[in-house]
Amino acid sequence: MALINENYLKLPGSYLFAEIAKRVTTFKTEFPEANIIRLGIGDVTQPLTPAVIEGLHKAVDEMAHAETFRGYGPEQGYNFLIKKIIETDYRSRGIELEEDEVFVSDGSKSDVGNIQEIFGVHNKVAITDPVYPVYLDTNVMAGRTGDFSNGIFENVTYLICNAENNFVPELPTEKVDLIYLCVPNNPTGTTLSKKELKKWVDYARANNSIILFDSAYEAYIQDPELPHSIYEIEGAKEVAIEFRSFSKTAGFTGTRCAYTVVPKTVLALTANGEKHALNKLWNRRQTTKFNGTPYIIQKGAEATYTPEGQAEIKSIVKYYMDNARIIKEGLESIGIQTFGGVNAPYIWLKVPKGLDSWSFFDKLLHEVHIVGTPGTGFGPSGEGYFRLTAFGNKEATIEAIERIKTKLSL
Amino acid sequence: MALINENYLKLPGSYLFAEIAKRVTTFKTEFPEANIIRLGIGDVTQPLTPAVIEGLHKAVDEMAHAETFRGYGPEQGYNFLIKKIIETDYRSRGIELEEDEVFVSDGSKSDVGNIQEIFGVHNKVAITDPVYPVYLDTNVMAGRTGDFSNGIFENVTYLICNAENNFVPELPTEKVDLIYLCVPNNPTGTTLSKKELKKWVDYARANNSIILFDSAYEAYIQDPELPHSIYEIEGAKEVAIEFRSFSKTAGFTGTRCAYTVVPKTVLALTANGEKHALNKLWNRRQTTKFNGTPYIIQKGAEATYTPEGQAEIKSIVKYYMDNARIIKEGLESIGIQTFGGVNAPYIWLKVPKGLDSWSFFDKLLHEVHIVGTPGTGFGPSGEGYFRLTAFGNKEATIEAIERIKTKLSL
Repeated sequence: MALINENYLKLPGSYLFAEIAKRVTTFKTEFPEANIIRLGIGDVTQPLTPAVIEGLHKAVDEMAHAETFRGYGPEQGYNFLIKKIIETDYRSRGIELEEDEVFVSDGSKSDVGNIQEIFGVHNKVAITDPVYPVYLDTNVMAGRTGDFSNGIFENVTYLICNAENNFVPELPTEKVDLIYLCVPNNPTGTTLSKKELKKWVDYARANNSIILFDSAYEAYIQDPELPHSIYEIEGAKEVAIEFRSFSKTAGFTGTRCAYTVVPKTVLALTANGEKHALNKLWNRRQTTKFNGTPYIIQKGAEATYTPEGQAEIKSIVKYYMDNARIIKEGLESIGIQTFGGVNAPYIWLKVPKGLDSWSFFDKLLHEVHIVGTPGTGFGPSGEGYFRLTAFGNKEATIEAIERIKTKLSL
Repeated sequence: MALINENYLKLPGSYLFAEIAKRVTTFKTEFPEANIIRLGIGDVTQPLTPAVIEGLHKAVDEMAHAETFRGYGPEQGYNFLIKKIIETDYRSRGIELEEDEVFVSDGSKSDVGNIQEIFGVHNKVAITDPVYPVYLDTNVMAGRTGDFSNGIFENVTYLICNAENNFVPELPTEKVDLIYLCVPNNPTGTTLSKKELKKWVDYARANNSIILFDSAYEAYIQDPELPHSIYEIEGAKEVAIEFRSFSKTAGFTGTRCAYTVVPKTVLALTANGEKHALNKLWNRRQTTKFNGTPYIIQKGAEATYTPEGQAEIKSIVKYYMDNARIIKEGLESIGIQTFGGVNAPYIWLKVPKGLDSWSFFDKLLHEVHIVGTPGTGFGPSGEGYFRLTAFGNKEATIEAIERIKTKLSL
């Protein structure tokens, strides 16, 4: 008698973006003429850059000839890409990594979703609140939480981030084992200083905890004082796994390439105190359940590291950060309080007039035909907040803000 | 105190192909001049076909312009591909599927590895023996087995397949919940008739079991009487999930595209007897932990369904099946007993002179510089057998068999 994984039944309703899609579809059926602008889901709009396109075409041509055809590659990714990652993204910031500490994948969503598999079911999980839903949902599915009640899961530590604490999570009072940090943060668009991050690294070292550090948005950091990698913090190589992606830097949301860094010095324990390197466990997970990122796609990712590729990425980041500025300034000009948007492509706004997040979603959709993301979709502390993203195209972003400024009833 | 998933520690030694790679590397260091021919790992050697290459190039060009650029796609795959899959691979054989019953992915290894997540930990797993190691290893990692001792995992039902039973697994005497079948089989190259498959479907229906049906090699079936899909068997849509791949048909081992069929009529139970559709659970798994197969790659896969693409695939299959015939006839001409190789690209041979599988591996490598795969790598019943694959290029395959015929000491 085949039994299901009943942990799945604990997950409430549908995934955030599915609910948004449903409401938008209903609205479109009712008002087919409306020109909807989407500043909701964090998807990019700018095309792949010329260097990447050239890299992809070349790789496709290689696949057409037996002499240059590539079959199964290393599950961990090709060295040509890993070398560039280490040199450009880490060595340039004073961080040394070995090649087998970097694992190329098909996306950070997969990696941050799968990483929990290498940990036992009896770990206490801490997430910031609000947060990217994948961290929590994947731990629910794995049975690491209790039931969902009153908007939260039992046996999870929610680290509240709101305007009152300036979106800097406080260290938990109870001991936690796995700590998910997204820096710069999705959805709040805020980030952490070296000093603030150091507190977490010190906590993890003192408590044998592991930090799962999602830095998918590090390329958007403008302030030169802010850390891009957790490994800029002393001791982090003992306690942190870092996730990075080409999605938001090089427009790879539909092209799929990311990587995860698992230093060999990061150890966790068996119940009777034996230490094991997580690098080895993750390698086993990836070689057993994954067959590598397509060769063609890895060649596309490699092309982002050429001088042209790097310049193109910088210009994409600048394009979206201009949008962020337009959104932020526009909202503030009509008295809406905003956070983020300076070192990250997300603007987190305080919903005006005491509305709740979903009411503001409906209001924005119906009054000015703009789709954003309700803060509650990211956790209970998101109530009363709302996320807009800078990933739209410039004209649409300007138009959206103009509509909000002139047509939204506040 | 972060705890590891201790189930990983139950896995013995390294993954099969890692051990092979190690022995080959050692040999090459000792004999750098040797011209090694690889008929071991099931990787293809023929390049992507012209239709696929054209599809990929076009898609890359689309990604270069904002108007045709694709960001996040549906996690389940694009409808353009799903429609072709249903029409060509299923409707043509009298099987009707709905579009949301097909999930496109980055590979069957991922899907057959991840599928167990939607099942509870207290399911009894049955695997054929020998078998593709991923089915078993992923269940070990999930804690669905006991320890490894005397070459087998406790609490797993091994369905022995050997020359004595003509590689047709017998129904288990105990009740099992999850049954992995690979048809045509990797590694034995044998397959099952409709009548034999029906026994399994009937068993699953009678016992509320689920069949996980890996048909990655169905395109290699030559005999028109044999089933290509488990859904050709009456009642299978109530009990079976089917996995298919573009890897071995269209040469996608390094390009990564596959799909999994989960009919909505396949149900499993909660501990207290509530029925749940596995389709919904798999959809939740995929939307939470996966972000879709690259658009470019899905367009490449779609191109295999054009008339040109279909003709090209047939010609690739013919190419490899010619190799299979060459290997099989060559081995039999010197008195080595073989199985498979008629409806599948694998030749499973009985190791001559009572040698064990790894000794024959070393003998083949050292005497004739050919790499194959020891049968024990696929399970205890593989002892005394050895796998050769038909995926080499023709000249190398002919040369390999010539060496075996003339230089191998038997």
